[in-house]
Parts: sequence; structure tokens; C-alpha cells
Amino acid sequence: MYESFFRTLVKPAQTKIVLLILDGLGGLPLDPLGDTELETAHTPNMDALAARSALGFSLPIGPGISVGSGPGHLAIFGYDPLEYQIGRGALEALGVDFDLHKQDLAARGNFCTLDGQGLLTDRRAGRLPTEQSQKLVQELSAIKVAGVELFLKPIKEHRFAFIMRAEGLSAQLTDTDPLKLAEAPLPVRPKTAAAERSAHLVNQFIAQAQAMLKDLYPANAIMLRGFAQLPEIPSYTDMFKLKAAAVAVNGMYRGVSRLAGMEVLDLPGSSLADEFSALEAKWQDYDFFYLHYKQTDTCGESGDFDGKVRAIEAFDAQLPRLLALKPDVVIITGDHSSPALMQSHSWHPVPLLLYSKLVRADRLAKFGERSCAMGSLGIMPAKYVMPLALANAGRVAKYGA
Amino acid sequence: MYESFFRTLVKPAQTKIVLLILDGLGGLPLDPLGDTELETAHTPNMDALAARSALGFSLPIGPGISVGSGPGHLAIFGYDPLEYQIGRGALEALGVDFDLHKQDLAARGNFCTLDGQGLLTDRRAGRLPTEQSQKLVQELSAIKVAGVELFLKPIKEHRFAFIMRAEGLSAQLTDTDPLKLAEAPLPVRPKTAAAERSAHLVNQFIAQAQAMLKDLYPANAIMLRGFAQLPEIPSYTDMFKLKAAAVAVNGMYRGVSRLAGMEVLDLPGSSLADEFSALEAKWQDYDFFYLHYKQTDTCGESGDFDGKVRAIEAFDAQLPRLLALKPDVVIITGDHSSPALMQSHSWHPVPLLLYSKLVRADRLAKFGERSCAMGSLGIMPAKYVMPLALANAGRVAKYGA
Repeated sequence: MYESFFRTLVKPAQTKIVLLILDGLGGLPLDPLGDTELETAHTPNMDALAARSALGFSLPIGPGISVGSGPGHLAIFGYDPLEYQIGRGALEALGVDFDLHKQDLAARGNFCTLDGQGLLTDRRAGRLPTEQSQKLVQELSAIKVAGVELFLKPIKEHRFAFIMRAEGLSAQLTDTDPLKLAEAPLPVRPKTAAAERSAHLVNQFIAQAQAMLKDLYPANAIMLRGFAQLPEIPSYTDMFKLKAAAVAVNGMYRGVSRLAGMEVLDLPGSSLADEFSALEAKWQDYDFFYLHYKQTDTCGESGDFDGKVRAIEAFDAQLPRLLALKPDVVIITGDHSSPALMQSHSWHPVPLLLYSKLVRADRLAKFGERSCAMGSLGIMPAKYVMPLALANAGRVAKYGA
Repeated sequence: MYESFFRTLVKPAQTKIVLLILDGLGGLPLDPLGDTELETAHTPNMDALAARSALGFSLPIGPGISVGSGPGHLAIFGYDPLEYQIGRGALEALGVDFDLHKQDLAARGNFCTLDGQGLLTDRRAGRLPTEQSQKLVQELSAIKVAGVELFLKPIKEHRFAFIMRAEGLSAQLTDTDPLKLAEAPLPVRPKTAAAERSAHLVNQFIAQAQAMLKDLYPANAIMLRGFAQLPEIPSYTDMFKLKAAAVAVNGMYRGVSRLAGMEVLDLPGSSLADEFSALEAKWQDYDFFYLHYKQTDTCGESGDFDGKVRAIEAFDAQLPRLLALKPDVVIITGDHSSPALMQSHSWHPVPLLLYSKLVRADRLAKFGERSCAMGSLGIMPAKYVMPLALANAGRVAKYGA
């Protein structure tokens, strides 16, 4: 209700909004009374911006729910993550720049290792080097299944995207990964009667793939999981009247940006400095930039508190390059929390900074969890952050006389 | 939507959650700039826990709404109190351990005093001693009404529970208590056509009861109110995968716990120390404990500010017994506020403390209304407190990749 109403008020303007996502930004102290990763980090640039900003937290879905990057990004992009659900396979396909069509069936593929009895000994085939994986994917691309088109795209290491194109496919299919060693990969099973044909088609592909790979230890088999089709989501142009660009290295984030109708920018390299360079190069061409930084989450998920601190500091060091462009609105937050203490995504609200010339500055001179707890934005559902940013950018008409 | 979605993520774990409800905990200062009851109380144990906890407020239904204990408890238990409404009569019947069936019609009964003209002179028959009331209830139990089964159960003092069992009864009936002295008790009237038969049946019972009691001053009549049937609510096992125990002295709280599928523990006595003893005795047997403390509300409702302060201090003195058991998650809050200044329940958000090893401690070293206002939990709808507690107890799966 709010969302559809808000859209009626959105108007264009000559202003620029930047959404900076430090993946898994929110943290926890190692000692209950100590500082979090963000509080520990020396971040003079974010702190100076914080003093002129409104602070608070963004909450991806709701209290107690830890989200993956997909729903976390949809939420901070301004979509209701319970209304728009994207399956893993669709995200992976988007992530490798595959032009996924509405009826395509997508899944995440893994090379894996089976023993002589056909039981799993390594679910990731020893994290097969990307070059070898690319070669195998090319070989598997020769497989034909009658009545459908098949597309296979290498991702990183042991991963690939599987896409089947035909009319009337269904994603109501079970995974083949048993998620345990010493068990055999499972056949794909239909969850509904309408998915029976799809299951049969995918199993035909798998049978041919296993036959081709059986002597190619350690990558002597494949598994497929996360079968999905694209949801329909309104584009940033339709929803917010924004010409939007995405700056992200990793596939999933490029994919979810493209789903939202953002143009994914080419990068001169994969460092954070390269990401800021890409943004600088296209500054005149877009109204909105989303910039994704993965390193904070990578360290959080691997339990590397100090690494996450350094990653945040590295981000802080790049921030002046953006501020020199004089953006009208800057949002700094994450798609979810990833405390090093937990070595995983968590449910904790994510620190949120909103800068514009029209914000009520909280005068809190530190960007960190405890200062955000005193911020005027409170705990804000993530889907409301973009509406607030648009207002700060002069892009929302008054309602009523 | 959030609630049903959340349920799909709940998973079991080997952790223990304790929900401590100080009934009517929230208060007000007697002098506008003074301290509330909770702030005045000397609570070294809760304060030490507060320093390692997240603070905030729980809001039973919404801004400006004062709740009774029934909806207040449903909310803090995690049910939407507007979705699940339990009538008074049903709560009273549950409260005296009556095995209320789904179609039963229940009401709260009062003995009262009428004068020679049949007008009320005392709505509570001088708070008739419980023993006398029990005897009268036994006599009234001889009443027969054709086509229905009747059950009468004594409660405390002048109160009793009235239950009628038959097919097709309706609770759409008006109260007989006019709520004013010098008026006559009212007949039961149907609010809908479907309730006409029920009204007729209940009025038959009342007529016989008044005839039996008419010479037994001061308890020479009865009144019935709060006609209700049980709502369908999901159990704690279904909703949260918790094996839940309730520790409560008073009937209503035992009743609402039982409705939520909790097992109501036997108590060695009715003191707060007895309640903690019951919890200690069964610590190994449950995942979740709800412990209810009535004294704070009793003092609040009677305007006894100092008594409420002492009640809070008495609770604080017992808290170490629980902490010694090393619970994974502890929630301290109330079902509503009951400021002594107002001598009633109030709409004010209720102080909320959430302790776990995974909480972002607010470093606020006092459990009180003003420190809660600075806490990171903000003003949290009461129904979200349990979801957050479950996350802190490792009982919620991540959503999405």
C-alpha cells in the first residue's frame, strides 16, 4: 500500500543519489562490552560524514530474520523482500550476465567428486580452479536434450550456472545435492505435477553429464540446486524514475542489480579502487549509483574480525573520491550484518548513514553501532531507505494540498 | 505475512529461553521530572544484566492502546493480539484449569448483593470469602437446563467461572452486570440472531440461580459477563518449535499459557521464590520458560508507588537464581504498563531487556524507562520480541542465498 502510493509521488530531478553497500557491515564485539568491527575501525571520512548525517539502522526483513544477499539487496533497493522472492538459480544466472528470459529455468551447478560407489567425497571437487571448470563447462555444453535449449555458464571455481529454455518449464524441483558426504547425489524430483516434465528433462541432462565426467576425477560429477525462475519486479525507472547504474564485482550483485533494471558498469579491475573509478567515469551519465563492496562480508563470514576492520578502513579511504563528486544524497549501509563473532550472516539491524543537505544531522561524530542506536532514523525497514533518499534528493512530490 | 513467513524459518536447537513478565512493569514518575517505580527501585542484578543486554520497549498492540492481561500476554507471547482475541470468560475458565472445549460458552460469574427492590448495592457481595463462595458454587451446580451441560468453578472470593456445553452455542451475548450500583442486573441479550438460543439458555440458568440465592444475603444474586469461546491459536510447539513451560500463580496467566500450548508447572507455594523454585526444578525439561510475577501490577493498579518499587526489588533479588542456570536468552519486560500514578493499566510502552551472548549490548548500566529509551531495540511491537529471542537462541534459519 505504502509502496504503490509512494510511486505515484516520485518525480524526476537533476540530483544524484549514491547507495554504498558494505556487504555484511553490521557486527558484534568479540567481548560483550567491547567494540564492534565498525566501531574498532579508524574511519575518519565516514565519521566526518556521520556528523553531518542522520544515523540509524536498516532492517532487511524483520526482527530476528537473517537474510541472504538476494533478499537483503532487494530490501535495501526498495523492494519488499517477502513480496518479491528470487530463487538462487535465477540469481546465479543473472550474476554471470546471462540474459535470463522470463520462462527460463535456472539452477546453480557444482562440480563434485564421487568415489567408486558413486558416493560424495567432496561437494566442491576440491574447489576446482576456475580455468579447469571453464573447460569442463564448455565440454558439457555439447549435451543436447530434445525439446529444450541448454545454456551452461562458468562461475568461479567449482560453480556454474545451468539454464534450460523452453515453454512451460517449472522450478518446483528438488535439489540434487544431499548436503552430506558419503551419500549419492539425488535425482531431481518434481514438487508438483506440473513440474514432472521439467524434472524429466533436467534428469536427462544430468545423466549425460555424469557419463561425460565419470573419468575426470576430481570433477567426476555435477550437482544442481536452487531451481528458480525470474520473479517480475518493477524496474528502478518505473518505480523511482531513476536512471540507475550498478558497480559490483561479484555476480550475484550484478545480477540482482540487472533484475532491478540497473545498468551494470564495466570495471577496469576488481579492486575497490577500480569500483570507485568506474563510478567516477560514469558520474555524468546516471541519477543513481549502487556500489557494492564484498570484502566486509567475506571477512565477517570467515570470522576474521581484524580483516573486517581493515576492510572497513580500506573503504573509508576511498570515500573522499565519491564525496569530491558532490553527490546530493549518500547512503552507507549493508545488505545484512555478518559479525565475525558468528562467522555468518545475522539478524542484527545494519548501521545506516543518510547524508544530504536536507537531513537533520544527528551530530553523532562516529559511524558505529552504538552511535547508530542513538540516531534519529531509528530502526528503519530497509525498503524505506530509498524512499527517504529520494525525498532528500528532491524527487518526491507533496501529497495533498 | 511476516509471522507466517517467520514460522517457516524456525528450527530446533539445544538452547533455553526465559521470558520474565513483571505484570504492569512500566510506570510513571509521581513528579513529572522524577523517577519511575523501576528507576527508583534498587535493582543491582537487573542493572548488571542490562549492561550486557539490548534495551528498548515492548508495545503490546500499538500507540495509545492500553491492554488487559489477556491481549498483553498474547502479544508478548508472539501472537498478533488483533488477530487472536480471547474473551474474558474463556480466559477465566482456562484459569481455573477447566478443560474448555472448542464449542463451550464461558463467562465470568460474580456473586453480588441486591436490595429489596432487586437493585445492586454491592457488585462483589462484599468480596465474599473464597470458602463461602465455593459452597455457593457447589449448590448452584445442581441447576439443570434442558439440552446443555453446565459447569461452575469457583475462582477467588466472589468470582466463579460459568461454562455451558452444547452444540451451536454463540458467545455473541451481552453482559448482565450494569457496572453501576442502584440498578438491576440485566438479562442476557443476543447480539446476533444466531445467539438467540444461547441467550435463552443462559437466562434460564440465571433465573434458577437467583431463585436459589435470593435469601442468602450478601450473596443473594449472580451476574455473568465476558461471554466467550476459545479462539484457535497455534501452539508454541507449532509456532516456535519450543517445548514450553509456564510458571504463574494466578489463573488467567495459567490459562493463557495453556491456550498457547505451554505446560503449566505445579508450584510448591504462591510466593515469587516458589515460582523460581518451580522453574529450577524443571530446568532440564523444557526449552522455554515463561515466569509471571503479579505483584508489580497489583501495586500499580492500587496506586501504591512504594509497594511497586519494593515488588520490583523483590524480583531483582530472585534473579540471580535464574542467571545461575545460565539461560541462553533472557527477556525481562511486562505485558503492559501499570503506573501507580494512574492506578490502572496504561498505554505506555513497557521496558524491555533482551540478554544473550549474541546481543549488541547497549552498555546502558540501568534497567529503567529512560535508559530503555536510549536502547537499540527501540519501541518494538511485543509480538516481535519472541522472534528476536529465537534468533538469539540460534533457532532461526537464514532466508535466501
